[in-house]
Amino acid sequence: MGQTFNNRLLDKCNMTNNRLCIGLDVDPDKLPPNISDFNSVELFIKEIIDSTIDFCPVYKPNLAFYERFGSKGFELLGNIVSHIGDRAITIADAKRGDIGNTSKHYADAIFNQFGFDAITISPYMGSDSITPFIADEHHGVFVLCLTSNKSAKDFQFITQNNTQLYESVADKVKDLNSNNNLGLVVGATNKIQMNSLRDRTTPLPWLIPGIGAQGGDLETSVKIGNQKSLGIINVSRSIIYAGSGSINDISEAALNYTKKIRSFL
Amino acid sequence: MGQTFNNRLLDKCNMTNNRLCIGLDVDPDKLPPNISDFNSVELFIKEIIDSTIDFCPVYKPNLAFYERFGSKGFELLGNIVSHIGDRAITIADAKRGDIGNTSKHYADAIFNQFGFDAITISPYMGSDSITPFIADEHHGVFVLCLTSNKSAKDFQFITQNNTQLYESVADKVKDLNSNNNLGLVVGATNKIQMNSLRDRTTPLPWLIPGIGAQGGDLETSVKIGNQKSLGIINVSRSIIYAGSGSINDISEAALNYTKKIRSFL
Repeated sequence: MGQTFNNRLLDKCNMTNNRLCIGLDVDPDKLPPNISDFNSVELFIKEIIDSTIDFCPVYKPNLAFYERFGSKGFELLGNIVSHIGDRAITIADAKRGDIGNTSKHYADAIFNQFGFDAITISPYMGSDSITPFIADEHHGVFVLCLTSNKSAKDFQFITQNNTQLYESVADKVKDLNSNNNLGLVVGATNKIQMNSLRDRTTPLPWLIPGIGAQGGDLETSVKIGNQKSLGIINVSRSIIYAGSGSINDISEAALNYTKKIRSFL
Repeated sequence: MGQTFNNRLLDKCNMTNNRLCIGLDVDPDKLPPNISDFNSVELFIKEIIDSTIDFCPVYKPNLAFYERFGSKGFELLGNIVSHIGDRAITIADAKRGDIGNTSKHYADAIFNQFGFDAITISPYMGSDSITPFIADEHHGVFVLCLTSNKSAKDFQFITQNNTQLYESVADKVKDLNSNNNLGLVVGATNKIQMNSLRDRTTPLPWLIPGIGAQGGDLETSVKIGNQKSLGIINVSRSIIYAGSGSINDISEAALNYTKKIRSFL
């Protein structure tokens, strides 16, 4: 195809006039009681997808929720990614990162074996743990920058020469973006830092978790995230466990988020 | 059993009078030509284990090399871990790390689904991404501290108040070690930093990659790593692709490393 990942993402967002990413993090303890076996979990996830894909541009399964089922979970994951196909962008929320030789194998697993469009990466090991994932411009990478969890502050705010660690990560990622397929993970819970970070990191797209259960603000995230670039809003638990857990309640919750996002764009 | 992970690790090291960890990173492109299908890969890995387990206390598969085969790879991984059983310590080199709710599921996957004794973790998201893995004292965690790859310097040496990021990580991990089941990953390629870091991090055990293909020094790593604690020496490619790739060549390479390690202890 030759199209870069960031342009593919932009196209899907424009086509749907949306910035929503539905996090497909299926926790068996929280599923409706009628979803009791493995096949019904697969059917349930596929129904969530089919009832939202007309207006939702991005889906993001977190691999932890599949790994916990062992090899069966990975089979399920592969089935879900093929079910989505090229109807939407798929991000493997995997937070991987290893020495170059090993990252190459992770990239092969995520992009070729499972068929994802993009992956999330942890930056701790530096650029040579990122570059094997961005060799193919068609596939994208979101690097953890400023995360949405409480202990993000443990290390991400460490400051040298007036630059905080998360800003150093952002600068490095911007430098590496010659294939136009890199983005950043910026948690919605970091309202204060978002403004200066948006200027600093344009044109990198953001993947923004932390809305809903974690307490991040939707309006701020949509408005700042989408200044001069894309800010993709991830919502997981507040959509897939919405209401009674029926597909109607779930797609309605996804549509409500979509309407709010559109009103803030 | 009630025994802490770090004590279990110490026992295995004492019983074998060794500090070797064999990295089971099976790259199909580098295997001997007679290892061509999936079953023969499994047999090959099991033979490596059986021919070295009398003297090798620790095995560490890197999950990238299994993920690349999709669900079949995860089945293989489960089979390998059960094959080792309680004959040696198993470390999942996974470099995971996510928000608390998600890390719980990774811990469940790695410890309960696959049956590993320990895991490697990336610290970027801070303490709440680590604590779900250390709740059970029986299972251990090695947190990335100072890695062996070239671009480790991109972020790990960022300095605030005379403390470098990798030292902040080490200090935090030491604080969290109330269950005596935490350790650090300290790359063998960082000879200069090892001395001060060993004092600073006692009694945490170290997992030391970077020997062999990456150029780290064995003598320094064994001597500094094992001052007042454990320094586990990981060797992957220089053992499992040794000589002609025959099991004899492989076990001989592992035994040679063992003899050198013993001479430096």
